Amino acid sequence: MNPENKTFQVQFQPLGKRVSVSDGATLLEAARQAGIQLASACGGEASCGQCLVVLKKGKANPLKSAEQFLLEEGDIKAGYRLACCTQVLSDITVQIPKESFITGQRLQVESNLAEISPDPQVQAYAFELKPATLEDTRSDLKRLLDELTSQHQLSDLKASLPVIQDLPNSLRQMDWRGVVLIKDARIISVLPEDKKPIGLAIDLGTTKIAAHLVDLETGDNLATGGISNPQSSYGDDVINRLAYAIRNPNGGQELAGLVRKSLDEMLGDLLDQAGMERRQVAEGCLVGNTAMTHLLLELPVRQLANAPYVAAYSEALDIPAGALGLGMAAGATMHIPPNIGGFVGSDHVAMMLASDLDQSEKVTLGIDIGTNTEISLRLPGSEKMTAVSCASGPAFEGAHIKDGMRAASGAIDKVRIHDGQVDLTTINDQLPIGICGSGILDSVAELYQGGYLNETGRFQKGNQRIRSRDHGAEFLLVAAKDSGSGKEIVINQKDVNEVLLAVGAINAGFNILLEITGTAHESVDEVIVAGAFGSFLNIQNAIRIGLFPHLPNAQFRQVGNAAALGAKWMLISGEARQRAQEIARRTRYLELTTYPKFSRQFARGMIFPNRK
Amino acid sequence: MNPENKTFQVQFQPLGKRVSVSDGATLLEAARQAGIQLASACGGEASCGQCLVVLKKGKANPLKSAEQFLLEEGDIKAGYRLACCTQVLSDITVQIPKESFITGQRLQVESNLAEISPDPQVQAYAFELKPATLEDTRSDLKRLLDELTSQHQLSDLKASLPVIQDLPNSLRQMDWRGVVLIKDARIISVLPEDKKPIGLAIDLGTTKIAAHLVDLETGDNLATGGISNPQSSYGDDVINRLAYAIRNPNGGQELAGLVRKSLDEMLGDLLDQAGMERRQVAEGCLVGNTAMTHLLLELPVRQLANAPYVAAYSEALDIPAGALGLGMAAGATMHIPPNIGGFVGSDHVAMMLASDLDQSEKVTLGIDIGTNTEISLRLPGSEKMTAVSCASGPAFEGAHIKDGMRAASGAIDKVRIHDGQVDLTTINDQLPIGICGSGILDSVAELYQGGYLNETGRFQKGNQRIRSRDHGAEFLLVAAKDSGSGKEIVINQKDVNEVLLAVGAINAGFNILLEITGTAHESVDEVIVAGAFGSFLNIQNAIRIGLFPHLPNAQFRQVGNAAALGAKWMLISGEARQRAQEIARRTRYLELTTYPKFSRQFARGMIFPNRK
Repeated sequence: MNPENKTFQVQFQPLGKRVSVSDGATLLEAARQAGIQLASACGGEASCGQCLVVLKKGKANPLKSAEQFLLEEGDIKAGYRLACCTQVLSDITVQIPKESFITGQRLQVESNLAEISPDPQVQAYAFELKPATLEDTRSDLKRLLDELTSQHQLSDLKASLPVIQDLPNSLRQMDWRGVVLIKDARIISVLPEDKKPIGLAIDLGTTKIAAHLVDLETGDNLATGGISNPQSSYGDDVINRLAYAIRNPNGGQELAGLVRKSLDEMLGDLLDQAGMERRQVAEGCLVGNTAMTHLLLELPVRQLANAPYVAAYSEALDIPAGALGLGMAAGATMHIPPNIGGFVGSDHVAMMLASDLDQSEKVTLGIDIGTNTEISLRLPGSEKMTAVSCASGPAFEGAHIKDGMRAASGAIDKVRIHDGQVDLTTINDQLPIGICGSGILDSVAELYQGGYLNETGRFQKGNQRIRSRDHGAEFLLVAAKDSGSGKEIVINQKDVNEVLLAVGAINAGFNILLEITGTAHESVDEVIVAGAFGSFLNIQNAIRIGLFPHLPNAQFRQVGNAAALGAKWMLISGEARQRAQEIARRTRYLELTTYPKFSRQFARGMIFPNRK
Repeated sequence: MNPENKTFQVQFQPLGKRVSVSDGATLLEAARQAGIQLASACGGEASCGQCLVVLKKGKANPLKSAEQFLLEEGDIKAGYRLACCTQVLSDITVQIPKESFITGQRLQVESNLAEISPDPQVQAYAFELKPATLEDTRSDLKRLLDELTSQHQLSDLKASLPVIQDLPNSLRQMDWRGVVLIKDARIISVLPEDKKPIGLAIDLGTTKIAAHLVDLETGDNLATGGISNPQSSYGDDVINRLAYAIRNPNGGQELAGLVRKSLDEMLGDLLDQAGMERRQVAEGCLVGNTAMTHLLLELPVRQLANAPYVAAYSEALDIPAGALGLGMAAGATMHIPPNIGGFVGSDHVAMMLASDLDQSEKVTLGIDIGTNTEISLRLPGSEKMTAVSCASGPAFEGAHIKDGMRAASGAIDKVRIHDGQVDLTTINDQLPIGICGSGILDSVAELYQGGYLNETGRFQKGNQRIRSRDHGAEFLLVAAKDSGSGKEIVINQKDVNEVLLAVGAINAGFNILLEITGTAHESVDEVIVAGAFGSFLNIQNAIRIGLFPHLPNAQFRQVGNAAALGAKWMLISGEARQRAQEIARRTRYLELTTYPKFSRQFARGMIFPNRK
């Protein structure tokens, strides 16, 4: 096909970035190569329609049928293409419209839960060594070990290769005195006396990564940050990323490298904020869903992506930070807490921990809504807890929704519809350019409440904002003249269907979990709602459309990013780690699809409850 | 100097290899880049005169003064240059004369010492797992750990990241049954039932690397091999290599990478020989002098190269094989036994172990002669042993000797001179092209015995084979017409001086060691002579010139490569590892230069003993 191995230049506007790609490469590949994070919920499968670009100059392949289906007539005329469908056949200049960028998201890293007291795993011991002489040529390590034995009665300590590599220069730069950090009888590093040990807590989400830099002795937050998961341009969806890792020979390595690099850069930024050094970072703790930790650790994922969906590990791991490309103290490790199963990860364990679900004296449900939604149940008096996972899809992440977007600047996050009028708010009060999860939930709930949708989610004609289109009806949320992109923002029939799928899955999850454990809806005392979408959603609207079942006596508690807080707890406390392992051991995973009534429950969940 | 960043092509004959180098790079750098191991005892310092090349075509800088000093008139006319002095100023073609190659050496990997019974560190346990189902989605690691607990009562086992990375695919390929290898409560790997665990024992010498592939259960040798240390082109001498690592920003990394790659290739060859697989290699044990293990481990060496010459570590280490670039079983480690000091490495510990020096009931000296020579003393009834190190120089490695060479094909290894006639043998009975260590020792001893040299090593005129030259007298060993290279082979005054330096250093080491420990020469019962040169040298000649002191009641035992054997013992036996740690702990290192009489002893050692 390409005997001459031709390469072409691709120029991206408005960034002005250029890359060389081979003849026939797609613009999505070119963007990735240029380090541009283009929105791409499907990961390049030509199904989400997010990776919009405008071809300004140059030659590409004709429109593919997927583009003809996903793009509107006017857009096609204006030169819009999908980057994943467009092959570079000459030097090319493309414009990236702002809705195609993954940037400036609302990143939720705070939580409104309690803090705990530190019970640090890393201990610091002061030392002062006699310098080596020709009469006393003990090795650097031996000299340090001898001192720790004689001054602190520590014996049988081990040091890993990176620690020994660091020791000779550090000891001499420090003039043979300082503190040595030790964890589990292993030397982590030596530091000057005035440098304190700090730690890094990470919540590695499918979409967002949140992190705290923490003083290990006081538990104080020294710096906090959040970034997008750079794997997003390989698919919003966990499944698309696993597929990429499985299908491409170095796919797993590529995805691991991407997230490791971002984590290391984020660490560098946090350290700059706090005015600290990499060698002070004595330990880390990272939580994430099971697929995310597998991709980070470059573990095989074929068995995770296919039935019976088995994780490679479920135990707590301590991985040398260097093996993950993280520039921390020489002997630092990342603690990766246990997972409960292929679909219930350490992030859910961390959420159960930080919300004290495992110790609750009430009948408590815990839910973390995402592309995959985990729900767990605590029954007081019972040793075991139960967790289920629902394939709720990315609708509430803004994906698979025509004008959906992440919770970024300009996203519609709240909607009220009354008397045919639309009131809405956007993130950062920008002109609206799309709708994020909470706005999508509000829209559908308000449309149903107002009678624009019937109980099976069909649009009911008779309002001027409802128009017929080839692919079904749609509701005009924002007119072109009022939008930030100059284009209409609508909710269409397909969007409502996507929301119904999510509602059906989560509703079935709740109901089957309650049924199998013999728990009456009336007996549920509390529902802990965690995560970014969960913290911003309107609970009443969630109940109106059946996303949450009718639980007459339940209090809802929106706790924010409990997973990140749980990661911090485990970072600073050995007791919290122990509790997390107990949580994982005590929690039984229930595979919903093995439950005979699952399909019926799912279908039933896709019908809206009666209007109140 | 080089604003345009020009590059030129260098073509090496007779290999036909080509490389591109930047304007002004030396031919030695070009050769290294091309992967050609050019002899270079000084490591590119323009002092050994070994890296001879013939400039066939192209432009280079004019002769440097070092070349004018080191090269002969005729050679200069014939186009000879030193690769380290010759800068590439255009596309160039060079011829490498065969004496400049480091190849085909006599590599001694066998030893005439006893073998021991295995006491393996790695245990194998059979397992058969129930495959994962939707009703039983335990993770792969958990499933294996549960089986090991229920079938073999093993608990609290750990697995490193590479092991978990390997597990999912291996378990499924093996259809959930096989053996699991475990060491120190860590999982090393899973294997099909018909694959046995094997190990790798390595003696990492400055010049040569010897290795055995060993059946861990029986202790049988499965394959044996030897290669040159690829760092040789950076200097024959430990000091030159340390200097390279210190002076160049990535020098340490470069030298480590070079030897790691060679070790991994050697392992591949041994496995091919034995018909085994990398995943079977469950553990390794590597011994070497302290500088060599530091360079392998990429440890800082500045403190090792400068007084007071301190090692970074002296304890036994277990390093993940992957961290050393060695393709072994996923969780395999390399055991690196303890060293005694900056100048007495784990190879000497291994030699003391394999020759049972630590358990001898006689007054025993152990000596390993190299660029650095280690001597240790065992006094029965005493807990402590004592070791010294002598900077004997590389004369017996063939370096710093005008016609010196390694113990390779065509090297003169034995010499007899009687009535002005020279009898000699060469390795592999090839035409002589140079002299290796044992030939150099023989030559000097025979010249002294025959009266051609006086007791201070000055040439005595009056024989037609002794000629005056600008830089002193020389003795014609082989005429040009009888040599393999068509050039004369001589021993000159400078060569004799180099030998005298080695003799003085080693003699002083012996005598000071005996004096400080209050050991009379007469009371020494046994001298264990280890190593390649030590195994081939003529003991009588060594005594004649004072390389070994007069020990009237001593038996000399030439034991071959005892260090490699010791490495194998430690590979297959936990008891041997324990003994090695005891040897290191019990052996006191004595820095000769701190001894007040050192200089006097050294000078005295440089006078030949009376002729017998």
